[in-house]
Amino acid sequence: MPHLVILYTPQLDAEADLGGLCRAFADTMRDCRDEADTPVFPLGGIRVLAYPAAHHAVADGSGDFGFVYVNLRMGRGRSDAVRRRAGEALVATARAHLAPLLASRPVGVTLQIDEGPEVFDAKIGNLHAHFNKTP
Amino acid sequence: MPHLVILYTPQLDAEADLGGLCRAFADTMRDCRDEADTPVFPLGGIRVLAYPAAHHAVADGSGDFGFVYVNLRMGRGRSDAVRRRAGEALVATARAHLAPLLASRPVGVTLQIDEGPEVFDAKIGNLHAHFNKTP
Amino acid sequence: MPHLVILYTPQLDAEADLGGLCRAFADTMRDCRDEADTPVFPLGGIRVLAYPAAHHAVADGSGDFGFVYVNLRMGRGRSDAVRRRAGEALVATARAHLAPLLASRPVGVTLQIDEGPEVFDAKIGNLHAHFNKTP
Repeated sequence: MPHLVILYTPQLDAEADLGGLCRAFADTMRDCRDEADTPVFPLGGIRVLAYPAAHHAVADGSGDFGFVYVNLRMGRGRSDAVRRRAGEALVATARAHLAPLLASRPVGVTLQIDEGPEVFDAKIGNLHAHFNKTP
Repeated sequence: MPHLVILYTPQLDAEADLGGLCRAFADTMRDCRDEADTPVFPLGGIRVLAYPAAHHAVADGSGDFGFVYVNLRMGRGRSDAVRRRAGEALVATARAHLAPLLASRPVGVTLQIDEGPEVFDAKIGNLHAHFNKTP
Repeated sequence: MPHLVILYTPQLDAEADLGGLCRAFADTMRDCRDEADTPVFPLGGIRVLAYPAAHHAVADGSGDFGFVYVNLRMGRGRSDAVRRRAGEALVATARAHLAPLLASRPVGVTLQIDEGPEVFDAKIGNLHAHFNKTP
């Protein structure tokens, strides 16, 4: 945690740089800071994954419509101000990165931040240790 | 929002028309109406995405079992009657579309509607404007 | 329900057996028992699906970082003891199966169990009947 997952209609791979969008979101998360200027997300916990659908249907099918769904899932308990700050930073990144797409085709883009309903939570990997080690 | 995501075991692509199922679900959502005969879902907000798994394991692995998981995520606050009406309409569509599959192989099909735990929600795209424009 | 979904960065397919991990998780779920020694999960309801991302970004991109996200979604209302028992069993399976990977590269592994926010829930398939039939 946190992780951000992008689900999208596959025709967009020919019209936008989804790999670049992953990196842009990761950088946005890295730069996100709270009221005390502390990073909101630990560096080793930033993960962005993008998945084009194999099959899709959007609206009434009357045109070649695209769709991008962006979901950030983070731990519970951050302040409303931090949630809004993170959300607005991600929206700004999406608007900037997807501006050519939004100007050239019909496409829906939804961005949500969830605080998940987890009842068990474990970290097994070594990424946090990788980034917290003193040089 | 709303969006519907289908996760399924990949052998089913050879035995069922998952792209057709996406369209059938989108049409079902388009036709869904509440007690006041108002559409439950805005046309520009209907999105269905389907994903075959790259790897899978079902039950005890004693046979070639399939699985289809259908998840509709919609905004919070609709009435119980509307939730049930939408759910039953989607179940009817799944039963009709998957009838040959259900008659020919062991397969699990689960359909759930979630009201999501979002703490931030933004729409950036142009699809709602596309469908709301006056001709 | 329950179903377990694995989202992961795609370079790991060359370094770990994700299909084997699916089977190992399914077996772990099959063997999971509550305080009364009753199986926690019905055999016909065990489903594990794994998805490599098409695009990804992890941390600051300063290295080839991997990420595995494991999410088990199960029905609401089990006891804290059962949740913890299931979670710890899945963690042990992940640690064992991914030990070579964890020893050889930077990789984050997060495992969460959710009790989902469903407001409608239907089962249509024939798998439960398949496993409950008397021989």
